[in-house]
Amino acid sequence: MEYRISDKMANLKPSAIREIFKSLSDPTMISFAAGNPSPLSFPAEALGEISADIFKNESTVALQYGITEGYPKLRAAVAERLKAKFAIGRDFDETIITTGGQQGIELACKALCNEGDVVICENPSFIGALNAFRSNGAELVGVDLKDDGIDTDKLEEVLKNTPNAKLLYLIPTFHNPAGITSTLENRKRVYELAKKYSIVILEDNPYGELRFAGEDVPTIKSFDTEGLVIYCSSFSKILSAGMRVGFVCGPNEVVQKMVVAKQVEDVHTNNFFQMLCWRFMNDCDMDGHVEGIRALYRQKCGLMLSEMDKHFSKKVKFTRPEGGLFLWCTLPDGCDSAPFVKEALARKVAVVPGTAFNADTEAKSDSFRLNYSTPSDEDIVKGIEILGKLTVEMFGE
Amino acid sequence: MEYRISDKMANLKPSAIREIFKSLSDPTMISFAAGNPSPLSFPAEALGEISADIFKNESTVALQYGITEGYPKLRAAVAERLKAKFAIGRDFDETIITTGGQQGIELACKALCNEGDVVICENPSFIGALNAFRSNGAELVGVDLKDDGIDTDKLEEVLKNTPNAKLLYLIPTFHNPAGITSTLENRKRVYELAKKYSIVILEDNPYGELRFAGEDVPTIKSFDTEGLVIYCSSFSKILSAGMRVGFVCGPNEVVQKMVVAKQVEDVHTNNFFQMLCWRFMNDCDMDGHVEGIRALYRQKCGLMLSEMDKHFSKKVKFTRPEGGLFLWCTLPDGCDSAPFVKEALARKVAVVPGTAFNADTEAKSDSFRLNYSTPSDEDIVKGIEILGKLTVEMFGE
Repeated sequence: MEYRISDKMANLKPSAIREIFKSLSDPTMISFAAGNPSPLSFPAEALGEISADIFKNESTVALQYGITEGYPKLRAAVAERLKAKFAIGRDFDETIITTGGQQGIELACKALCNEGDVVICENPSFIGALNAFRSNGAELVGVDLKDDGIDTDKLEEVLKNTPNAKLLYLIPTFHNPAGITSTLENRKRVYELAKKYSIVILEDNPYGELRFAGEDVPTIKSFDTEGLVIYCSSFSKILSAGMRVGFVCGPNEVVQKMVVAKQVEDVHTNNFFQMLCWRFMNDCDMDGHVEGIRALYRQKCGLMLSEMDKHFSKKVKFTRPEGGLFLWCTLPDGCDSAPFVKEALARKVAVVPGTAFNADTEAKSDSFRLNYSTPSDEDIVKGIEILGKLTVEMFGE
Repeated sequence: MEYRISDKMANLKPSAIREIFKSLSDPTMISFAAGNPSPLSFPAEALGEISADIFKNESTVALQYGITEGYPKLRAAVAERLKAKFAIGRDFDETIITTGGQQGIELACKALCNEGDVVICENPSFIGALNAFRSNGAELVGVDLKDDGIDTDKLEEVLKNTPNAKLLYLIPTFHNPAGITSTLENRKRVYELAKKYSIVILEDNPYGELRFAGEDVPTIKSFDTEGLVIYCSSFSKILSAGMRVGFVCGPNEVVQKMVVAKQVEDVHTNNFFQMLCWRFMNDCDMDGHVEGIRALYRQKCGLMLSEMDKHFSKKVKFTRPEGGLFLWCTLPDGCDSAPFVKEALARKVAVVPGTAFNADTEAKSDSFRLNYSTPSDEDIVKGIEILGKLTVEMFGE
């Protein structure tokens, strides 16, 4: 049988990150490649206690079909938290639960884009989102990131020349992979451009709660007076990644279409973990718990940076993040990072090459991504020394 | 802001069943409308015990990101059970875990269909699947069901005249909504046609384990020597619907593309329930548990049928299912079922009109669907009496 694969899927390769993730079965490999939250960030004991209570007293609801929009108590609690902590949500907005933040991104594209329509994104950007857009047959146009956020002059050029651009995908806070948090001025300019060119912004904010230094910058959604912004986030980085519970807050008219699309993708997000999230928000100290995760990542990021300061060639540049899970390293003189990443892997340290995050899959990259949330402190020290030596060998002190 | 919704989603209405499901908050309403398994079919106590053990001993795996293809132990156990009980799975096949059976259906379409391609389905068919195909921009062509299964003469006509038909979607066993189980001869003829016209069959079998009378008929997948069949099923009807764990067994080449599509939809299915399913399969008596569900539905279906025999107008025809969750009723003389369904709702009995299951959304239907797994015995007796009286009022004894 010769299978006729759809055009949109025929050329879509599995994410390099997931492939690396699978290859990490080698126990001697030190991995800075994953995007996993630290297992220490899961409040396993509290979740176990709530879980026992749900099985004892509410098992029928937990195990039966639920509503596509989400478990009503969790929806209300999420909407309330978004409002109270981030000033997110207006009368025209609706909050729904999704199967991880990933599903919110995919549904937004499905609701808005026909095959051949354009999604504008930062370059580099989150591979999972880029592939979600590709899987819907959308074309990607990448706009370079500058230190203060997406290059707004270039963005306007693209908006002016791309009438079938339907979505502007941004990770303004603790950008994955580039580690940048865009400035308020940049965000306001982006919003004005979106308004001028009538394009919907998809603001992805999975790391927003993980600030361990500096001051919060208001989300774009918080000043969305026109209903231009779909905001996506999740519990993956603050409660558990494996339970697959995320949420979307966006203009009702678009969110209703996302609900219909969700209904035919997975009917609803598993009830049990929606109930668990709600109970944790209601019964436990969510803010205190998040504060603990921040302290953990402050320490791990600090350790990685201090080891890099010690061992890395001075010619390699890297970000000094104020939150999130990632560091972004750039090799000197536009040097292609692929051979570096390959040699690092041979020396048993896994990092993700920048090419994995490019809108244009043919383009090269001079950068690579490091994760500090998953590895142990010991592995951070050991792995950074190995990488550092390699940078010195390749580029000098 | 004027939102530009994608063409594929602009015309897709929320499923009538889900809308009815939401309206059932009226506690005086008797619902035969849902497709829910009986809460008595959930082994809540055993699942609670396993759950406690997972939280105690394996919480990190349960709460961390997992592999898109599924929890390895569960994949292996599902593949083994499919092989042992249904003779399903050959060297060219791959088994993966999906977020409910629904996701398997949607991914198959995404992997194979461009916008405008055709999916051939039985008419009527499962609304969730039809909308999944529509949400991918596929066109639907319905082929009428006869008593022995899909009309194979009409099917060949369609196959001959539809070069861009990419998928043939079938529910051969305990069809939803029509209750029919196709004969072995029909299945073999369908398979030969698929081979002749090089089309992939999507065999949806969520109810296959729920036979409470008669003899099993081999699945189409069991005689799939050519790799033509993608087989979808789930744990929703035998362990829990709310946990959203399903599975797919199909030719590796297509399944690999479905994995990539799944990766960008929800990364992976929640780990915890995958572990729970595996543990239940491994530690508990799955076959004995399923036998208990069969006995339950044998009794509930029998009760509904005997009450219908008592109260329904003899002019209304209905199926006598040997398994599954549904009865299909057909009004006399091609009478439109919509006014009947509306009047039943006014009398506080909810059923689903046949129009909800049509490939052609403009077409009328002379039928409606009854579910016997969800309502209590008391409600079955009470609700069928009300419906029966209505049939007699409208069509005579």
